[in-house]
Amino acid sequence: MLISFICNVLISSIAYSITRKLIPNLKEMFIKSNIYGIDLNKDNGIKVPEAFGVVTGCIFLISLFLFIPIPFGHIFFERRSDDFSNNEFVELISALLSICCMILLGFADDVLNLKWRHKLLLPTIASLPLLMVYYVNFNSTTIMLPKILHECFTTSINIGFLYYVYMGSLAVFCTNAINILAGINGLEVGQSLIIAISVIVFNLLQIFGDSVSEKHQLSLYIMCPYLATTLALWEFNKYPSTVFVGDTFNYLSGMTFAVVGILGHFSKTLLLFFIPQILNFLYSTPQLFHFIPCPRHRLPKFDPKTGLLNYSKTSFKLEDLSILGRICFNILKTLRLIKYEVTKDNVIYCNNLTLINFFILFTGPIHENKLNNLILCFQVACSLVAFMIRYPLAHYFYG
Amino acid sequence: MLISFICNVLISSIAYSITRKLIPNLKEMFIKSNIYGIDLNKDNGIKVPEAFGVVTGCIFLISLFLFIPIPFGHIFFERRSDDFSNNEFVELISALLSICCMILLGFADDVLNLKWRHKLLLPTIASLPLLMVYYVNFNSTTIMLPKILHECFTTSINIGFLYYVYMGSLAVFCTNAINILAGINGLEVGQSLIIAISVIVFNLLQIFGDSVSEKHQLSLYIMCPYLATTLALWEFNKYPSTVFVGDTFNYLSGMTFAVVGILGHFSKTLLLFFIPQILNFLYSTPQLFHFIPCPRHRLPKFDPKTGLLNYSKTSFKLEDLSILGRICFNILKTLRLIKYEVTKDNVIYCNNLTLINFFILFTGPIHENKLNNLILCFQVACSLVAFMIRYPLAHYFYG
Repeated sequence: MLISFICNVLISSIAYSITRKLIPNLKEMFIKSNIYGIDLNKDNGIKVPEAFGVVTGCIFLISLFLFIPIPFGHIFFERRSDDFSNNEFVELISALLSICCMILLGFADDVLNLKWRHKLLLPTIASLPLLMVYYVNFNSTTIMLPKILHECFTTSINIGFLYYVYMGSLAVFCTNAINILAGINGLEVGQSLIIAISVIVFNLLQIFGDSVSEKHQLSLYIMCPYLATTLALWEFNKYPSTVFVGDTFNYLSGMTFAVVGILGHFSKTLLLFFIPQILNFLYSTPQLFHFIPCPRHRLPKFDPKTGLLNYSKTSFKLEDLSILGRICFNILKTLRLIKYEVTKDNVIYCNNLTLINFFILFTGPIHENKLNNLILCFQVACSLVAFMIRYPLAHYFYG
Repeated sequence: MLISFICNVLISSIAYSITRKLIPNLKEMFIKSNIYGIDLNKDNGIKVPEAFGVVTGCIFLISLFLFIPIPFGHIFFERRSDDFSNNEFVELISALLSICCMILLGFADDVLNLKWRHKLLLPTIASLPLLMVYYVNFNSTTIMLPKILHECFTTSINIGFLYYVYMGSLAVFCTNAINILAGINGLEVGQSLIIAISVIVFNLLQIFGDSVSEKHQLSLYIMCPYLATTLALWEFNKYPSTVFVGDTFNYLSGMTFAVVGILGHFSKTLLLFFIPQILNFLYSTPQLFHFIPCPRHRLPKFDPKTGLLNYSKTSFKLEDLSILGRICFNILKTLRLIKYEVTKDNVIYCNNLTLINFFILFTGPIHENKLNNLILCFQVACSLVAFMIRYPLAHYFYG
């Protein structure tokens, strides 16, 4: 275990330095191939190369390819290793297959601008190999119930096919959750870094405190090179971004987290690390499902005079909304979760329902970098809360 | 076996019809995203969408994902299947991983126009997972020797690390061999179809005639959906092409062949199906290694007046060539494998060294479609020769 871990960290460090060197060299190539965007929160109009997730994704994959023989090869362990069985080996390969599929589909999305319905379909397709391997290898679809239900029911129930739906949904959720909490420099990469570090800390805590550690080892081996390549990307994507990461990166990250959550059997804990993403998703729901009008971009609005960001708005008339739309609006209004103005002719101007805009409601116009740091601090705080829930509270509920 | 095979054929048929429907619908999207080319052998200047290998590649992968549970799941076989062991399962997953990597890298190449050195590097990277799995699972690096050598040496020798170099090279060769025998409508897809059919026939012959059939079953399961999706692509890529396949398709095809050859342990037989590609490679060598000047495009030259193709030329002075270049030129001249003219000021105009141009030397100016059919007939003839070599002659040499 220790040798494998040291090799993994070593490979990750090399991956970090290669990624750092490679990214600036590739910028020109991406711009030449028309894969770039203009930063809407700047007024310089510079072309920023896009979809750099594909670069870190490839290096991440290659690192893991090269790592495979270390824990699984027969140089290090004369007989089949004690720590790892053939099952873990298949799991790792299928995890890589799912991640590779997601990079491919994410890159295709960045290049071809796929439609919204594809964004739900793609992660489902990419999680297929993982689900199939899960089906062939384990097909264990039993979940533990909280202690409180033990008296009424049993200690665990077999939810059968629904378990696969749950795992597929986890992949769809993770990929899209990161994708919709985005729009200011460094936010996608920053939040992914914090989630990755949280997962690694959790894995280490489990390995040192628990008996069933193989699953967490596997997760650790996947997360370390991911963290390394993402850290290198962060250097170029943090404010002011010189490269954009594209949907490729968000998909790749979401799938990586989903994969370790599923294979490591800690999907519920994983979701605890996604609290800000879940809040953002819930807050966005009325617009995502078009109960309240959703403009194409919901980014904060950049004011070229002050250089600060203000919240962006959507506009509608209350009588044009569906019943659900009106209910949503009234709930948000009552809970004071939105800011809105009503003009003389009854048009309502309300802030776009994203966590980013929600933060600006409290801070007022704010600099992009400051806003990003604020949200990332919130993510860190949520991770701390997650650990508090996971350890003392879960013990209370599950024993 | 029979149930799995029927399901595989069924899934392949569905994949065929989905691909046929999907391709025309996606054309507009590719052109909008600047992924198109102009057909140099036509004078209409129409934008033809490029890189459609990514579409067939994705459908091919999804077909195989959905197929996985059939031979390996425990619905059909209560206990672990007799036909298939866990090893075959890992092999299939790693084969898919290698193919998926190659699609990703091929598509990146089409979009980003990677450099020539990458074209050698990419298949090596993509074959890594396969080699790693081979290393962890088998690590058998022994090769049989022909009977004639049995007396001097042993019946087989262990070539160790060289075996991995050989497998890696096979992947590099297969991907690039298809990639350089290209340039007229339908040729890449046509040759891939013929090789695929040859492999399938060979697998069936082995399954019905041999005892060790699992490897050939696995190959068959991979080749059928490949054949189906490629057949659908052929409908649109044959003369006159309405879509181009891009490097993505060539890479995907080459890697698929290499993968079945390696996992099925019939890499030598596989190379027999690549006779035209090998001839083309050998004939091209002087230009590929720049012993003789190599222009950027070596396509045949289109004559808008007649609508026919003539061979294209490269020009040089004999005294400007290196020694190797002069040797190559003299050998080719002596063997009458080239046509050339010498101008008064000693400039030599010689046909570009590709199989396509070589055919035109014999036929004279020829219509694109006719030329393609001719080369494909040659490929079929070579496959027949391959079977003749494989069965009677191999028996003679290897017993």
